[in-house]
Amino acid sequence: MDVPIVQKILKANDDLAGDVRSLFEAHNLTAVNLMSSPGAGKTSLIEAALPLLTANLRVAVIEGDPETALDAERIAIHNVPVVQIETAGGCHLEAHLVKKALDQFDLNVLDLVLIENVGNLICPAEFDLGESYRVAVVSVPEGHDKPVKYPKVFRMADAIVLNKADLLPHVPFDTATFDESVTRLNPRAPVMRTSCMDNTGIDAWTAWLRSRIVREATI
Amino acid sequence: MDVPIVQKILKANDDLAGDVRSLFEAHNLTAVNLMSSPGAGKTSLIEAALPLLTANLRVAVIEGDPETALDAERIAIHNVPVVQIETAGGCHLEAHLVKKALDQFDLNVLDLVLIENVGNLICPAEFDLGESYRVAVVSVPEGHDKPVKYPKVFRMADAIVLNKADLLPHVPFDTATFDESVTRLNPRAPVMRTSCMDNTGIDAWTAWLRSRIVREATI
Repeated sequence: MDVPIVQKILKANDDLAGDVRSLFEAHNLTAVNLMSSPGAGKTSLIEAALPLLTANLRVAVIEGDPETALDAERIAIHNVPVVQIETAGGCHLEAHLVKKALDQFDLNVLDLVLIENVGNLICPAEFDLGESYRVAVVSVPEGHDKPVKYPKVFRMADAIVLNKADLLPHVPFDTATFDESVTRLNPRAPVMRTSCMDNTGIDAWTAWLRSRIVREATI
Repeated sequence: MDVPIVQKILKANDDLAGDVRSLFEAHNLTAVNLMSSPGAGKTSLIEAALPLLTANLRVAVIEGDPETALDAERIAIHNVPVVQIETAGGCHLEAHLVKKALDQFDLNVLDLVLIENVGNLICPAEFDLGESYRVAVVSVPEGHDKPVKYPKVFRMADAIVLNKADLLPHVPFDTATFDESVTRLNPRAPVMRTSCMDNTGIDAWTAWLRSRIVREATI
């Protein structure tokens, strides 16, 4: 009964996402949408990449959370433009929110926009934001079974990050099962193992982001 | 624009939740709805409690996941009646799904139904399942800032479980900030610190569940 209504909401979002995508393309801008459960380490992965990226790239960040501007406050310390979207309890970002956030940036002087979605392994996968690439982040303590239980976000990802690798010695996590399941769900996406505690894989993560840049490095 | 539609869906759910609640009450049954992010350890907390509870209580379990019956398979090993609800990508359980799952149990011979919601710290809080009590589970590696960012599920909880306490020495987690924020959001709910790895707090968690039982212990 409610399916047609949901379809209508998704159609409206897709139309707006098309506008956002055109805006990014017109400015030769790369936009990356990071999706994960709450607390998988999206903000920390952005924080770890920023010092390496901003050496010669101009980066802005959009933060999404149901409440608070805590994440934007963390990002602002790195001296990059940042906007916090508080969804007032909403479970995902939508294209109209991203479009509005982009009003706060001068797109002519940016190379990369990192969009941290609301912490939710399900709903964000339904909403195109006009991003160029999608990254699925999952953390070791969540368990090796998350890809098969929550497959959509892994299937659609352009890259998959297994974060908090430093916790592997401390939790039950079957890396073989994890690797097999993500490769089966998405043979195309590179899988990077990272830790923001001991810096494991941060070079690879940053190099992947850098490889997505359209614009020639400009600063 | 979509608010009235969402209200209609919620109203239909609330009506059905009322039916489910009446069903539980008619059978002097306690039902507990466990809500958390993916991988916070809901299934492990149920697994840890079952051997202690089933000594003199009759327990059934309803498992919710977007895909797979992996959790129901884990519970079935404990020789209790269990139903897996696969939501086909859906981000929360609804009352009509619980009502249908209950068809699989003989409610006359049960004392407690544990309902493990889909792993999602946002959407499940919107949908009454007819449960008697709600438990919010959050795990240490998710970070101490989760209650203030995702407050609704903590505000409505009858008990709050901080799981994976064994990881406290290995991750940045400010216990004072966490404790202060959950007490401020919900002064009424007891906060239990647990670990399914070293059994910390499992006695308290099980005792809390046991204290919710309506029916006199019958076996």
